[in-house]
Amino acid sequence: MSTTTGQVIRCKAAVAWEAGKPLVIEQVEVAPPQKMEVRIKILFTSLCHTDVYFWEAKGQNPVFPRILGHEAGGVVESVGEGVTDLQPGDHVLPVFTGECKECAHCKSEESNMCDLLRINTDRGVMLHDQKSRFSINGKPIFHFVGTSTFSEYTVVHVGCLAKINPLAPLDKVCVLSCGISTGLGATLNVAKPKKGSSVAVFGLGAVGLAAAEGARIAGASRIIGVDLNANRFELAKKFGVTEFVNPKDYKKPVQEVIAEMTNGGVDRSVECTGHIDAMISAFECVHDGWGVAVLVGVPHKDAVFKTGPMNLLNERTLKGTFFGNYKPRSDIPSVVEKYMNKELELEKFITHEVPFSEINKAFDLMLSGEGLRCIIRMDA
Amino acid sequence: MSTTTGQVIRCKAAVAWEAGKPLVIEQVEVAPPQKMEVRIKILFTSLCHTDVYFWEAKGQNPVFPRILGHEAGGVVESVGEGVTDLQPGDHVLPVFTGECKECAHCKSEESNMCDLLRINTDRGVMLHDQKSRFSINGKPIFHFVGTSTFSEYTVVHVGCLAKINPLAPLDKVCVLSCGISTGLGATLNVAKPKKGSSVAVFGLGAVGLAAAEGARIAGASRIIGVDLNANRFELAKKFGVTEFVNPKDYKKPVQEVIAEMTNGGVDRSVECTGHIDAMISAFECVHDGWGVAVLVGVPHKDAVFKTGPMNLLNERTLKGTFFGNYKPRSDIPSVVEKYMNKELELEKFITHEVPFSEINKAFDLMLSGEGLRCIIRMDA
Repeated sequence: MSTTTGQVIRCKAAVAWEAGKPLVIEQVEVAPPQKMEVRIKILFTSLCHTDVYFWEAKGQNPVFPRILGHEAGGVVESVGEGVTDLQPGDHVLPVFTGECKECAHCKSEESNMCDLLRINTDRGVMLHDQKSRFSINGKPIFHFVGTSTFSEYTVVHVGCLAKINPLAPLDKVCVLSCGISTGLGATLNVAKPKKGSSVAVFGLGAVGLAAAEGARIAGASRIIGVDLNANRFELAKKFGVTEFVNPKDYKKPVQEVIAEMTNGGVDRSVECTGHIDAMISAFECVHDGWGVAVLVGVPHKDAVFKTGPMNLLNERTLKGTFFGNYKPRSDIPSVVEKYMNKELELEKFITHEVPFSEINKAFDLMLSGEGLRCIIRMDA
Repeated sequence: MSTTTGQVIRCKAAVAWEAGKPLVIEQVEVAPPQKMEVRIKILFTSLCHTDVYFWEAKGQNPVFPRILGHEAGGVVESVGEGVTDLQPGDHVLPVFTGECKECAHCKSEESNMCDLLRINTDRGVMLHDQKSRFSINGKPIFHFVGTSTFSEYTVVHVGCLAKINPLAPLDKVCVLSCGISTGLGATLNVAKPKKGSSVAVFGLGAVGLAAAEGARIAGASRIIGVDLNANRFELAKKFGVTEFVNPKDYKKPVQEVIAEMTNGGVDRSVECTGHIDAMISAFECVHDGWGVAVLVGVPHKDAVFKTGPMNLLNERTLKGTFFGNYKPRSDIPSVVEKYMNKELELEKFITHEVPFSEINKAFDLMLSGEGLRCIIRMDA
């Protein structure tokens, strides 16, 4: 047992004091884990668009001061009452959505939308007692999606921790906590392209490129990348993208362009932008008879998906996915194994690295659209 | 070989001379089958809404004079050049859409939308030579969806004929040519409810009741029928419907009513009305995480399907189907076997029977909403 077990830990965390202002590295107090909670030492974390989105807090309930961060890799420091699946020293990936293993969703083979631990972006406290485990001089600092990985130590519900192979390098597999698994799973678990098939991927950011990586792994022979930024194509080739379509280059709708390129439509499409027009195009560009379109990107809350019903009646399928349909505890360990056996390549997603002290640089890189994932080393 | 092989056959047919006017039983000439065609003697035919729709010809290209009819059972009289799958005496069900077995759709396991023989409601002639095989005193009478079963003899492309068990009673299995297979397949092949699951069926006409029959066969424990006509419920119980919802009885949208009845939504829904609002309700009434909605009914051509994209992103699936995803030649014989082994009940769909000479009575029954299927006996 660690000497810190049951004690408050004082450590560094990057606190977002208010919307859009640079994070400040502060000394925080991290309370011991309570019932069904685990305290973990974060070794590496990375920055995802969702962190930036809730940091900017435009059009949302502002929840500040808050410790953001939800893509990370760490080691269990201590466990709270009732935790039997994990013990100190276990390597884990925290996940922003959980798996209680007891609700109807967890018991369904088809869903990963746990009733108890489904993502909740408004909640800044732990479920058990509706309190925060973080504080500075007694003043609580709010949690973010149950993970708050921009801290040397954090407390997470056991249902939001995937126990992984301890040999897996945490500075690489930490990116599987969110975006990469989301895109990869959208293709492998939901679109399920067959070997030799064609796949269109809308949006060539990290999630879209992970969707393309999934298509590459599945053996798709044509992977058509769609993005408004032509510079993305060179990078996308590394992820198996074979052709590039920039909707700006055409007067006709991009779904028509793709249908002409593919003799009627692609076999599968994956939408990773969250723009409603792209969602509609991604659906309408799949082939009748067998085409499957998978929606990943989250649109504006007032967006409306519209299509002619004959597009559906002609035997197209439209599905949405959340976290690539992976159940965090049951499935993510096997995604780590895909990396370990070299089926899945993660290095190409990691374009930058900064020490924790320079975490705001990671925000600058994302805001300027540079690179894909920036790893933040907690020990530096 | 029949003595009529290669000869023109003179027989009775019910001709629709113009839109909305009673059919007239006429003496017609039926030319011999050409390349890849088969001439069949129709023994029983039944009336489907689609016949009535194209007979009324509202807002369509009128194609008259025409011989309607597409649900039927018959016996092969003679075959044209190149036909090797069928021979005189074989029992067949003609189908309004075909299976060439050579196109991308036929080769795909997932599609039944044959490129060559997909339904074409505007074409009134045979594919081979763009001519009709029916005439009266040398004046051509047009075909309907490649079947034209309101005739003692008709000519059909071999790809539109399912060869069935000769022991199957044609006066019962003829209803599998269209509507009943459409509803049944929508549930069994596309919605695929699990044993013990809940299924909502929108529209309790013949197609919807066949969808319910599919849910009953699949072992669904709750089958919720939705219809604006409360009188349908008594009948629907015979098809396994356990609960009835009339949207008129509620102020809130029917999808909310169903969600409340089922702790968040049904596992599967099947939409058989073709009304766009019902299509949207059928989608939004399925449970998040695993719900699948299947659209069967064909809406007005200007209808637009609209929904909030979060309904999709919360892991609902929306699919359309055509002829229940059955491939006519490959799959319909096994549906006949389901009837033969008493898994599927067809008698309850057959509410009326008329002799061919009184075919217009079948139209009257359908227009007044009475009953489900009216069998027309060609020999009477």
